[in-house]
Amino acid sequence: MINQHAAVPGGEPGPHHDGSPLYVGTQTPAAGDRVPLRVRVPRSAGVDAVYLRVVEDAEPRYVRATGSGHVDGEDWYTAEVTVHNPVTQYRVLLDRGPAGYTWLNGSGEYSREVADRHDFRLTTYDPGPDWGPDSIVYQIFPDRFARSGAERAVPDWAVSAGWDDPVIHRGPDTPHQFYGGDLDGITEHLDHITGLGATAIYLTPIFPARSNHRYNATSFDCVDPLLGGDEALARLSTAAHARGLHVIGDFTTNHSGDDHAWFRAARAGGPEREFYYFDERGDYVSWMDHPTLPKFNLESTQLRDRLFGRDDSVVARWLRPPYDLDGWRIDVANMTGRYGPFDHGHDVARELRGTLDAVRPGSALLAEHCHDFSTDLIGDGWQGAMNYAGFTRPVWSWLTAAENGLGFLGMPQRIPRRGGGDTIATMRDFLASTPWKVALRHWNLLASHDTPRFRTVTRDPVAVHLGVGLQMTYPGAPMIFAGEELGFEALDGEHARTPMPWARPQDWDQAALTGFRELIALRRAHPALRTGGLRWVIGTDDAIGYLRETADERLLVVVARAPWAGAVLPGRLAAQAPQTLYGEVALQASERALIVPGDGPGVGVWRLA
Amino acid sequence: MINQHAAVPGGEPGPHHDGSPLYVGTQTPAAGDRVPLRVRVPRSAGVDAVYLRVVEDAEPRYVRATGSGHVDGEDWYTAEVTVHNPVTQYRVLLDRGPAGYTWLNGSGEYSREVADRHDFRLTTYDPGPDWGPDSIVYQIFPDRFARSGAERAVPDWAVSAGWDDPVIHRGPDTPHQFYGGDLDGITEHLDHITGLGATAIYLTPIFPARSNHRYNATSFDCVDPLLGGDEALARLSTAAHARGLHVIGDFTTNHSGDDHAWFRAARAGGPEREFYYFDERGDYVSWMDHPTLPKFNLESTQLRDRLFGRDDSVVARWLRPPYDLDGWRIDVANMTGRYGPFDHGHDVARELRGTLDAVRPGSALLAEHCHDFSTDLIGDGWQGAMNYAGFTRPVWSWLTAAENGLGFLGMPQRIPRRGGGDTIATMRDFLASTPWKVALRHWNLLASHDTPRFRTVTRDPVAVHLGVGLQMTYPGAPMIFAGEELGFEALDGEHARTPMPWARPQDWDQAALTGFRELIALRRAHPALRTGGLRWVIGTDDAIGYLRETADERLLVVVARAPWAGAVLPGRLAAQAPQTLYGEVALQASERALIVPGDGPGVGVWRLA
Repeated sequence: MINQHAAVPGGEPGPHHDGSPLYVGTQTPAAGDRVPLRVRVPRSAGVDAVYLRVVEDAEPRYVRATGSGHVDGEDWYTAEVTVHNPVTQYRVLLDRGPAGYTWLNGSGEYSREVADRHDFRLTTYDPGPDWGPDSIVYQIFPDRFARSGAERAVPDWAVSAGWDDPVIHRGPDTPHQFYGGDLDGITEHLDHITGLGATAIYLTPIFPARSNHRYNATSFDCVDPLLGGDEALARLSTAAHARGLHVIGDFTTNHSGDDHAWFRAARAGGPEREFYYFDERGDYVSWMDHPTLPKFNLESTQLRDRLFGRDDSVVARWLRPPYDLDGWRIDVANMTGRYGPFDHGHDVARELRGTLDAVRPGSALLAEHCHDFSTDLIGDGWQGAMNYAGFTRPVWSWLTAAENGLGFLGMPQRIPRRGGGDTIATMRDFLASTPWKVALRHWNLLASHDTPRFRTVTRDPVAVHLGVGLQMTYPGAPMIFAGEELGFEALDGEHARTPMPWARPQDWDQAALTGFRELIALRRAHPALRTGGLRWVIGTDDAIGYLRETADERLLVVVARAPWAGAVLPGRLAAQAPQTLYGEVALQASERALIVPGDGPGVGVWRLA
Repeated sequence: MINQHAAVPGGEPGPHHDGSPLYVGTQTPAAGDRVPLRVRVPRSAGVDAVYLRVVEDAEPRYVRATGSGHVDGEDWYTAEVTVHNPVTQYRVLLDRGPAGYTWLNGSGEYSREVADRHDFRLTTYDPGPDWGPDSIVYQIFPDRFARSGAERAVPDWAVSAGWDDPVIHRGPDTPHQFYGGDLDGITEHLDHITGLGATAIYLTPIFPARSNHRYNATSFDCVDPLLGGDEALARLSTAAHARGLHVIGDFTTNHSGDDHAWFRAARAGGPEREFYYFDERGDYVSWMDHPTLPKFNLESTQLRDRLFGRDDSVVARWLRPPYDLDGWRIDVANMTGRYGPFDHGHDVARELRGTLDAVRPGSALLAEHCHDFSTDLIGDGWQGAMNYAGFTRPVWSWLTAAENGLGFLGMPQRIPRRGGGDTIATMRDFLASTPWKVALRHWNLLASHDTPRFRTVTRDPVAVHLGVGLQMTYPGAPMIFAGEELGFEALDGEHARTPMPWARPQDWDQAALTGFRELIALRRAHPALRTGGLRWVIGTDDAIGYLRETADERLLVVVARAPWAGAVLPGRLAAQAPQTLYGEVALQASERALIVPGDGPGVGVWRLA
């Protein structure tokens, strides 16, 4: 008794709507605005009339859409909807005459009554900067990226390592193995990053800490001298900006280290005691029961001010010159402000956002949220999330090696290998679970410093390439953990923190690097791949395909993990001879049919019209 | 490209868990409690291990369940889970060995990654009185139920009608047609209600108003003298309680009438002005743009105090002696406290609940919520909802006449006729969308004063009987709008407000009445039908079947709308010869199989073990 997922046959794309500009009059509606919403319906779908079911003050109303044009065998319908609430939910009712009606929401079309979860949403919230959806984010773990020549004493907590030493990823030395990468090292290698095509750098923590990962900060008042200190950050920021790169920091609003100045003061009975959860016996709450990571109690407004108030907070300070961070990724954002009966998660996100908007308009705020982020990401706080749930995990399941013994972020089970239908069902579920403009700002990743390398998940460089193909053509900003582009392998997140082999170019996987560069360039060249609408057209076990469309272009993306049967799409989708933008496979087009050959494995991207 | 629903074949019931006592150690856990959770897994399902994925502070943790017994071919697994948050979400991971794992949540089993919406939930919230799930609620529209002999002048707004006159249900006289039913009339007919088997009366509004429906109250300070005044309510309450009937009122926290004393004072510039939404020009917001129903502005704490404060509010007053209402049904609860940027819906529900609990512990609070109530019904405010979304609507779609021209609560389309699979998918979706103890407190209705009569939806007395069969065997308290049991017909909600033909027993549909009485008696005789777990076992186009189970009994319910193929269930489900509790059809049981014959249409209920 297994629940089945959406059927996405190769064939006629169904009636469609999504949050992209093709279908929605404005991405930034204000209260009271009347926004035109458009629905496209293939004439062959047998739809007699189209209505929008729009929720106002939690009560649905129905607005009939009127025909507004006929293009390439599809009727367009338009209705104007008033933005009455900050979040206006709606879905589409398709009147199919004697066959009854169906519902079209963000996850597909249903021949039954549905709940509101996958309703489309107009929101009055500022979605964040336009550069968000256009980003290619390059993640750097500072201790392991590059060393400048600076001589520094090895700290007392550290186990010094040579740059080419193997990474210790199990046992007590794991957090203490110290390679000595620093910020000037990053500055020296910006050409590698721009050469890849990335547009933003995301740095894992740079505050002082007694570990190589620095998530257990001892202070938020300065950049770790081991990384070069405040001046090195200013130098990096200046150099990155000069190259057009944005720089995003990483902040733990959920906890500090247990040797943080505030926690030491709290233990000593200082006013910082309210920053943490102490009980009468002096025991305290810590993140996932790690005593080195005492959890912040965000009931304290004093603490909130220090962390993310608008004046002199940590968040504010580093957004300002000369550091000029372009935004923050917030560690374990899902848990931040939440403990037992207290749930300030949403408030905290909104306050953080307010500070960013006040101190550095146009800066980015991303949530680490490895699970179902739908209730937290309506768009008033976090602009987007690290999209483990809606991208990483389904893609891993589709492309994993059948037997690799790897699990996923604490799960007790190994990653199962699923078919394309299951994969798409999960991707649609999560894509539809946030407003479109939020989904465009997620970071879609194949791996991070918290996971095995994707190459190790797949055990196959070809499968890595397929994953990159999906990553560079799907809604949401691709995030690449440094080293993915060189073919790194690693069994877990700690293992993945391998130093970049600058001095060993012979160890670089040049084919992988070329694949990344080409697909990143493709994404950057085509707005449709970044912000265009998404229509699923192929969903078989071994092949996934979708259209990405703007008013100016229609691209077809097909990723196949193996040879497959191929698909026949309507010829009207290709107004002229399709142009192959990526891959070796040519489409066969006639007036009546557009044939997608069943070649595989591979990534194909074509311009249809 | 239609999304498919859960497959519910006739055959082996799958692994199962729900919120009922068979599976959950306590219905009223407190913070910090460790609650045993049990999962049953047919040995034939091929499950190697069972884990619970439990969310704490928005982060999942995994708890391995251990084998705790083997009964009738099923393994039971148990894990203890700590109640850390007020709402603790969890779902089940079933390790299927080389086949990968599946997820089991409240809506079924999935071979893909799922979002959290259908997670099971433990909550620390008081679910409301135990009599809630045991109720059979009888809805009365006072103007149309019964007249006592009292002589009263017809009010100036009214169009007087004789008791047997046809109901005016379109045009301006609709709200003014006045039959003169009163509360003493109800008191005189309590034997009918108890004879039916009902355990509670729900009265639509009884405050003074210039309409027959009284949703546009002119005062909340007294019972309408046309109904007999305050004393008549006290008499009714006393008589009902003497017969073991609960009495539930109906209150509009969303709006008043435009001739309500408060609104008149507000218009005149009195302190009540803040109770409503006036703009600078003196225009005001009204419910669904009906100017006679000005919407309350629940930003006003003064207004909140008057409506539902703990001391001298409307809600409090009528719960106290001598009126002793046993609870409130709140009109348009979904919209109450919500307008544009203001959303106090949840706060209002919690405050209402607090007043009920303080003034009359053990009283009921039901929300009128005709749509997706999942985000509003976590259990801290409303105890349950009128279950249009999860019961009425799918059942209507399954049993509607193919062509009756009727729509559903403002929808522009007629009700489509759907198959059993679609029907079950919607029922599961909504059943899983609230905590189990909330779902048990919904009111499941086939019709109300706001809908056509169910007989008119189905155009078939047999189909009505099938609907009653579902209503009396499904989780949630059945609610019957007076007259359903007599075979009333009506094209819309206003039309449905037909006077009860006390003097014309020859017009009563005795077969309908017998069907209601028998099925109500069956429900009242079997706790499993009220609070037992629910396992779907049959879901074909024309037949729906489920098990309702407690530690003491296992009942099989099958409702067929037509002859169907029948089903073969595992023989182990029937430990001894099945006993037919309802219907004419006998099961055929052997050690190897339990055969459900494909007779139909009809309702069958059997005791299996």
